[in-house]
Amino acid sequence: MSKKPLILITNDDGINAPGLRALIEIMNDIGDVVVVAPGSAQSGMGHAITINSTLHLEHVSIDSGKQQEYSCSGTPADCVKLAINEILERRPDLCVSGINHGSNSSINVIYSGTMSAAIEAGIEGIPAIGFSLLDYNYNANFEAAKHFAKKITKSVLKNSLPKDVVLNVNIPKLSKHDIKGIKVCRQARANWQEEFDKRQTPQGKDYYWLTGKFVILDHGQDTDEWALKNGYVSVVPIQFDLTAHHCIQNLNTWNFK
Amino acid sequence: MSKKPLILITNDDGINAPGLRALIEIMNDIGDVVVVAPGSAQSGMGHAITINSTLHLEHVSIDSGKQQEYSCSGTPADCVKLAINEILERRPDLCVSGINHGSNSSINVIYSGTMSAAIEAGIEGIPAIGFSLLDYNYNANFEAAKHFAKKITKSVLKNSLPKDVVLNVNIPKLSKHDIKGIKVCRQARANWQEEFDKRQTPQGKDYYWLTGKFVILDHGQDTDEWALKNGYVSVVPIQFDLTAHHCIQNLNTWNFK
Repeated sequence: MSKKPLILITNDDGINAPGLRALIEIMNDIGDVVVVAPGSAQSGMGHAITINSTLHLEHVSIDSGKQQEYSCSGTPADCVKLAINEILERRPDLCVSGINHGSNSSINVIYSGTMSAAIEAGIEGIPAIGFSLLDYNYNANFEAAKHFAKKITKSVLKNSLPKDVVLNVNIPKLSKHDIKGIKVCRQARANWQEEFDKRQTPQGKDYYWLTGKFVILDHGQDTDEWALKNGYVSVVPIQFDLTAHHCIQNLNTWNFK
Repeated sequence: MSKKPLILITNDDGINAPGLRALIEIMNDIGDVVVVAPGSAQSGMGHAITINSTLHLEHVSIDSGKQQEYSCSGTPADCVKLAINEILERRPDLCVSGINHGSNSSINVIYSGTMSAAIEAGIEGIPAIGFSLLDYNYNANFEAAKHFAKKITKSVLKNSLPKDVVLNVNIPKLSKHDIKGIKVCRQARANWQEEFDKRQTPQGKDYYWLTGKFVILDHGQDTDEWALKNGYVSVVPIQFDLTAHHCIQNLNTWNFK
């Protein structure tokens, strides 16, 4: 058996996305790579899973790399579940997701299919990292992102992630030489102010497109938003115990009468 | 203007679900109610939002209650965004989601459309509670759940929730008199061991149904799983800052060389 790490790759932009191709390229240098990614774009899918319909897998060959690839009809979280249970012969040593076309910093982690795939792997006990580049362009330049993704992946394989923690890595839209370094951060407080674009069908019925403005509610210099704005790659350790432990004592005083 | 609280209700089982009807019935006694719920079941949708297709709303009248009701083509999180931005004339005083047909305890919070709706309201700064009954039956008995949902809702309106925190409430499948009380808990460590049901299409192609077994990895007596198993209603305060703050110091020693 190969002594190289077994690396599972997925994303939410779909199996043909250039960001995924960039991630495959660098992971092929590090380990044995199996790709299980959605057949089409799944942005904004959050941690959706497919329980009311069937799932389909197709063995595909998209470029000349040495990776094995499967296209999946489901969500990013489905891809991870199928990979671990139906495709891989042993548990992967690492799961990497991305490189996402666009930011998954601060509150975006909640809506992100890219990060949900990483979190799903984390829940299954597999070290996992989600990578995102702050450039929504389909033909974005992934050179700097590749450089930092490789560096961070090697650090994770060397140091081992703490239990029940995955990494949310965002890379600013800058050249490699303009990026100042890597900063470990906390998730900034932020939200989206929705601005629905209300239109009418040809038959005169209202419908809506979801659009919005991202609002940062946090000016801490220890946040991912601060790091990205100041030219750093942000690394946020993410947990999936959502308990607000600091509130339990307060709630216990309520008595729920 | 009415001095009653304005209460937004949503769910993930769809606008016709008996659990939603039960929640409407008790909220009509507490405040002015507006329902914006998915037109069809959206279980397992996690925090999905609709960004690549259009959203449709329909003003509907499903029962004889005094609530206003809208059926939405989107996910539970979409329902909350549309309600706040396009339907409600003022910010709601509370958002309640459910009553879900089935558990959203421990790790299920991550996959739950019911809880994602509550979390979406929380991100928007609106106090929010998700309610779930540990009975998947469409014709489940919601009497005990109604009793406790009313009690907890009144407590939240009286005491005010801490900032950036929503409640995940699960109610055991027991009669009101057999339920021992309400326990504030932390989320138990647990995961799903998937068991994909692999089948073949009539044309001989493989496909899969996602099924699995829920595995509790945590035997703490302060968890939601313990409370539910021992006859209590569990209340877990949930946050949407996913940062694993306890790991930041450790990660800073890595240096990412």
